[in-house]
Amino acid sequence: MSNARFAIALAGPTLASSVSSSTVFIQPIGAVEHHGPHLPLGTDSIVVDELAKALVAERGDLDLVVLPTLSYGLSTEHIWAPGTLTMAATTVLAVLHDVATSVVRAGGKRLALLNGHGGNTNLLRLAIREIRAATGLDTFLVSGDLPPDNGGPPSDAREEGLGIHGGIGETSVMLYLRPELVDMEKAERSVPSWVHSYEHIGFGKSAEFAWLSNDLSKSGVAGDPTLASAELGKQRFGDSVVGLGKVFEELVGFSFPHH
Amino acid sequence: MSNARFAIALAGPTLASSVSSSTVFIQPIGAVEHHGPHLPLGTDSIVVDELAKALVAERGDLDLVVLPTLSYGLSTEHIWAPGTLTMAATTVLAVLHDVATSVVRAGGKRLALLNGHGGNTNLLRLAIREIRAATGLDTFLVSGDLPPDNGGPPSDAREEGLGIHGGIGETSVMLYLRPELVDMEKAERSVPSWVHSYEHIGFGKSAEFAWLSNDLSKSGVAGDPTLASAELGKQRFGDSVVGLGKVFEELVGFSFPHH
Amino acid sequence: MSNARFAIALAGPTLASSVSSSTVFIQPIGAVEHHGPHLPLGTDSIVVDELAKALVAERGDLDLVVLPTLSYGLSTEHIWAPGTLTMAATTVLAVLHDVATSVVRAGGKRLALLNGHGGNTNLLRLAIREIRAATGLDTFLVSGDLPPDNGGPPSDAREEGLGIHGGIGETSVMLYLRPELVDMEKAERSVPSWVHSYEHIGFGKSAEFAWLSNDLSKSGVAGDPTLASAELGKQRFGDSVVGLGKVFEELVGFSFPHH
Amino acid sequence: MSNARFAIALAGPTLASSVSSSTVFIQPIGAVEHHGPHLPLGTDSIVVDELAKALVAERGDLDLVVLPTLSYGLSTEHIWAPGTLTMAATTVLAVLHDVATSVVRAGGKRLALLNGHGGNTNLLRLAIREIRAATGLDTFLVSGDLPPDNGGPPSDAREEGLGIHGGIGETSVMLYLRPELVDMEKAERSVPSWVHSYEHIGFGKSAEFAWLSNDLSKSGVAGDPTLASAELGKQRFGDSVVGLGKVFEELVGFSFPHH
Amino acid sequence: MSNARFAIALAGPTLASSVSSSTVFIQPIGAVEHHGPHLPLGTDSIVVDELAKALVAERGDLDLVVLPTLSYGLSTEHIWAPGTLTMAATTVLAVLHDVATSVVRAGGKRLALLNGHGGNTNLLRLAIREIRAATGLDTFLVSGDLPPDNGGPPSDAREEGLGIHGGIGETSVMLYLRPELVDMEKAERSVPSWVHSYEHIGFGKSAEFAWLSNDLSKSGVAGDPTLASAELGKQRFGDSVVGLGKVFEELVGFSFPHH
Amino acid sequence: MSNARFAIALAGPTLASSVSSSTVFIQPIGAVEHHGPHLPLGTDSIVVDELAKALVAERGDLDLVVLPTLSYGLSTEHIWAPGTLTMAATTVLAVLHDVATSVVRAGGKRLALLNGHGGNTNLLRLAIREIRAATGLDTFLVSGDLPPDNGGPPSDAREEGLGIHGGIGETSVMLYLRPELVDMEKAERSVPSWVHSYEHIGFGKSAEFAWLSNDLSKSGVAGDPTLASAELGKQRFGDSVVGLGKVFEELVGFSFPHH
Repeated sequence: MSNARFAIALAGPTLASSVSSSTVFIQPIGAVEHHGPHLPLGTDSIVVDELAKALVAERGDLDLVVLPTLSYGLSTEHIWAPGTLTMAATTVLAVLHDVATSVVRAGGKRLALLNGHGGNTNLLRLAIREIRAATGLDTFLVSGDLPPDNGGPPSDAREEGLGIHGGIGETSVMLYLRPELVDMEKAERSVPSWVHSYEHIGFGKSAEFAWLSNDLSKSGVAGDPTLASAELGKQRFGDSVVGLGKVFEELVGFSFPHH
Repeated sequence: MSNARFAIALAGPTLASSVSSSTVFIQPIGAVEHHGPHLPLGTDSIVVDELAKALVAERGDLDLVVLPTLSYGLSTEHIWAPGTLTMAATTVLAVLHDVATSVVRAGGKRLALLNGHGGNTNLLRLAIREIRAATGLDTFLVSGDLPPDNGGPPSDAREEGLGIHGGIGETSVMLYLRPELVDMEKAERSVPSWVHSYEHIGFGKSAEFAWLSNDLSKSGVAGDPTLASAELGKQRFGDSVVGLGKVFEELVGFSFPHH
Repeated sequence: MSNARFAIALAGPTLASSVSSSTVFIQPIGAVEHHGPHLPLGTDSIVVDELAKALVAERGDLDLVVLPTLSYGLSTEHIWAPGTLTMAATTVLAVLHDVATSVVRAGGKRLALLNGHGGNTNLLRLAIREIRAATGLDTFLVSGDLPPDNGGPPSDAREEGLGIHGGIGETSVMLYLRPELVDMEKAERSVPSWVHSYEHIGFGKSAEFAWLSNDLSKSGVAGDPTLASAELGKQRFGDSVVGLGKVFEELVGFSFPHH
Repeated sequence: MSNARFAIALAGPTLASSVSSSTVFIQPIGAVEHHGPHLPLGTDSIVVDELAKALVAERGDLDLVVLPTLSYGLSTEHIWAPGTLTMAATTVLAVLHDVATSVVRAGGKRLALLNGHGGNTNLLRLAIREIRAATGLDTFLVSGDLPPDNGGPPSDAREEGLGIHGGIGETSVMLYLRPELVDMEKAERSVPSWVHSYEHIGFGKSAEFAWLSNDLSKSGVAGDPTLASAELGKQRFGDSVVGLGKVFEELVGFSFPHH
Repeated sequence: MSNARFAIALAGPTLASSVSSSTVFIQPIGAVEHHGPHLPLGTDSIVVDELAKALVAERGDLDLVVLPTLSYGLSTEHIWAPGTLTMAATTVLAVLHDVATSVVRAGGKRLALLNGHGGNTNLLRLAIREIRAATGLDTFLVSGDLPPDNGGPPSDAREEGLGIHGGIGETSVMLYLRPELVDMEKAERSVPSWVHSYEHIGFGKSAEFAWLSNDLSKSGVAGDPTLASAELGKQRFGDSVVGLGKVFEELVGFSFPHH
Repeated sequence: MSNARFAIALAGPTLASSVSSSTVFIQPIGAVEHHGPHLPLGTDSIVVDELAKALVAERGDLDLVVLPTLSYGLSTEHIWAPGTLTMAATTVLAVLHDVATSVVRAGGKRLALLNGHGGNTNLLRLAIREIRAATGLDTFLVSGDLPPDNGGPPSDAREEGLGIHGGIGETSVMLYLRPELVDMEKAERSVPSWVHSYEHIGFGKSAEFAWLSNDLSKSGVAGDPTLASAELGKQRFGDSVVGLGKVFEELVGFSFPHH
């Protein structure tokens, strides 16, 4: 048996007997939300689910237990758009607390959230510390080398650093993973250049604003999906898988020092 | 495009423009819980997910929107067994409330919960009425002709009517759907015959008891999985799919009379 | 002193010193809700309260502690009708949790909910398992041989199996217990025969719908109260009391086997 | 029909058609808690229930709707004593909010809480304002001329002003209402004279302490029940009923001035 | 170092090493709410904060730890007035619970709430008992000789005993503490004499009403601020400080007797 | 009157009449938590409160309403250290929701949270979006050019980029603002250099860990306070005030474009 395994595929006693203090439980979480007219609602869930599967496939040497993907996430910024299916923030916290409690009962000591949606990030950062304090689990949040919306590298310069939702990166990865679900004829450039007119307000500036995606553009997209390609997506996805492998390799051996 | 469709595969505007007052949104929900030493933790989630997929595949004529499966359910009766991953009852209610609210925003008028786990049933019955009162959606709970644990027909006589968890039915369906995840060498008969010694207390009797699965047997199984076969599973699963098709065909045309 | 006793009638130390591990605490719960124009709002509370009193009167041999009746229950299906006084589902769960915690402090090991209202049933089924998991009490749900609305036998054929609210059974029992509160001149037959036109949707069918009582009929009644009589009510009530006595006799001696 | 009526005795439509803007809905609330070795746990519930019944019997001229008594109240100060059955503070608030919402649906404009337990008082004072702000109902809290524990006049001098629980007043009223439930042989004087040694801390002083009843005395009683008599109880109870009648007479005609 | 100290001014280890079982932690709480056109919104917070500071300054002999003032309180009665900034009742309970838990972690055994706003009183009385039961801390509520709105002595006869908000007392104290924030030109007499026309309903009578401040007068003031003076305020404030000193001197030495 | 004003210093009607759609309400929030043996518990609250005051003093040209500082914040990472006084995450969300609702009632359209504690950041980022969706307010989170712990610039190289708590920056600012509360004799260098040994795990890396401050060092400090000076603190604080002035100048004129 591979050390990297899916929880749902194992019998309870089999799972329980295989868990050690270095086992890392991984909870993938995505979102089901408006991604513009060209990408499917499930983009973030599909990508994070594929990343988790690829990680298991390629890094069978690591002691990992992958939990079933939470498709719904926190998509408050897209609730204006019909089709967005979101949990409330308090619901996400409750679900993660329940998962953590279940991991403790399974004998786990480490829980990593694998995030596929940028809008989840602050909530998950909050969650990992609260979960650690409440349960004693060592907890982590991992995004890896994902598309920009997911905490990855800054987007392409052609997107003016603003390709955060439905742009080159996400569209390319979906063209690689699920081309049949992408409608490039509906892809349109929507770069919210207006944010550059503010010196102190905006992404990563002194004053953060609470934006909804239709504040950024009429379509809710921020980026230029017309520049996307399956080749770029393949490269990005592959880089993410490799990157995640390195991250989890380190996580398996991680411990806080004893002072 | 088929009328029966998956929400995550559609762009938001595409989904929204296709929803009418007769569209039935379907939320599958399973469980990740101990199913004895021979069946995987994800049995209920896997089965309900496959049922939903088969329904879409075979009944493209029906106006259905299938939401992403909720893998975790309510498995309080199995929390004694390491590996069980469960939400709290209040968490499930919150998730379903959030889903319902999201369906309303998508223009939906009907929501059916498709249940793959017997332990969810009472909670889901409660949920559909509370959701209807809170949101105005017409709501339904569907189990169809599933394995006995899921509200289906009484179990095989060889199980003394007690094949409710990990017995012939569930094991057979899993032997058909995921034989590689079933370990028949570990399958053992565990029929809680002792319940017959009570006249008034027990399943479907005047006094219902709040059982945990290890009250029923040491292994947590209730049934005789040694009698299971892939052939029987194929037949049961196929019957379920046909049955669900008929149920949803009727649901699409259902309305309460106006008095 | 009779072994069957009311908690409110005993001093605290007297109660505490009389509790053993086989004592069954009984929490009756009814509802205050629209029952058509001919029956009083308190029908379910009155009946369950009378059942509890009769049980104590007739089965003084059993080690029972009857708690004060919760008049309000969960009546979401009747909130359209002025006069319905209902708790929210979460409130009922909180009340029952508080009761269970109090029973534990009193030294109790067993708690049975005695239900007088069909609309409470799913919630109470949920509650007993959650309470057991949270407190360690052995918990039960008892309806006995009550009117059909309360989980009893199928209604009279003249009601087409649909006499679930304000029909022959409930009306008869009230004519026996509180004739002065029944206005037979306002009793009207209201049998929702339309449900028979659906093959898969309906009570006890594959698809359960979340009905409100005014979906069933304009008056909110489902049944034929014009056929009710005090004699029938006397018989039904008496049968219920005898039946409950047998149920609780068995409950006092019940234990899960040790595997 | 008397204008003073019980909600549970009326059919929904009958109640609804009789409600006007001056109708006062009355929600009695008691407690089930340790009252020393000589008084039953239900003392507060029994007394408030009898008060409500006497009010209806004697003041049929007033437009009152009496709701079913809430037997359980807030008895945090007695949780050390087995037999105390209490709701949590948040549960009481939820129940009262649900009641208020139900009263609004019934067409009511005024809701008075009739309190039978001193330990409920602060919570109910809080509740009436929050309910008014949330629902728009005019809300009131009434204790009337009840035993000292219930907000009535200062206790007998022989109790040093400390007859607040299980003392002369409450014991006398119970000797009048339910002599068979009072065990005068177990009645003992327990006056917490030690509180007089503090100048600034204590009941009605500058610093209020959060006492539990076993802080006051070993038995949890504060008062001298040995001085109680049925005659005194009859007088007190009668005075309370007369006093409540006057209070509600005024309440029916009350309105805030329009500035 | 003075024994009376502010928590925020000490390093954690310094505070922790100085705490003994007799140390009294003091949590001041005020309100930010409409006080008529002549007094600032922060009146209650400013006064309670100054009282706490004066207490520390004058009673350095007492073992006190003053926590940072909670400016916001419960001001439901003033939400009609723009500018009122209030917490919900449940929020205040949560904050106080968190404070109490933190005090326990700091080694504290005693917690006194120092209240600066009459509208907080019932909630705080409730809170101290619930906190004691939940945490084991000895808990107290202190108002001292504050302005009438804060639980102090009855107001001036010229205010007919109704100077409860924005009247002589509060205005005088603010004229002493923050004259620049008081606009005496806008001060107007607003005494709700109408309450005297009710015999049984009103402040401290048999039936308490849930008033909002604009029920009392158009301006939301109850009292006669035109009679206020800085001299009177200086005297009242000084008396309060002396009174509080005596209260806390007693609190440091207080203990419940062991029965 | 200055346009930059404190809410607690104004009468309700005065505040309400001065609010326009461009007015920015500012809610400062700090923390009361362990800052090592050399800094007081209130460091973050003191600094953010002084920043708010300085902002009002220096930028009277801006239309700002400063709300009273919330001293307590979210300090889960320091609960191991006695003296830390923290709200729960859910409590902070409730408080901020209540504040936002109050701002809406005051006629406000814009709310900026001014954060003085790094441990609050993720929660506040979450809060501003949820508040915007719930209330319609335009919401912002501002840290300005604060010490590194508060979201400011990377710490001094001598702290290896790890001066995030109790290091040069915070200590210097406190030496400037409150030298009497700083004990430099207890200041010790505590730089968690061990984090550099991980390539993928750590601050701002692919895998974020949920650290408690005693994971970083025995003292809970991360940084080198021995290098702090009042001069550096004066410069940093002054830069922050200037920076905040520019941020709020831009905020007053900010609006999302209409697409």
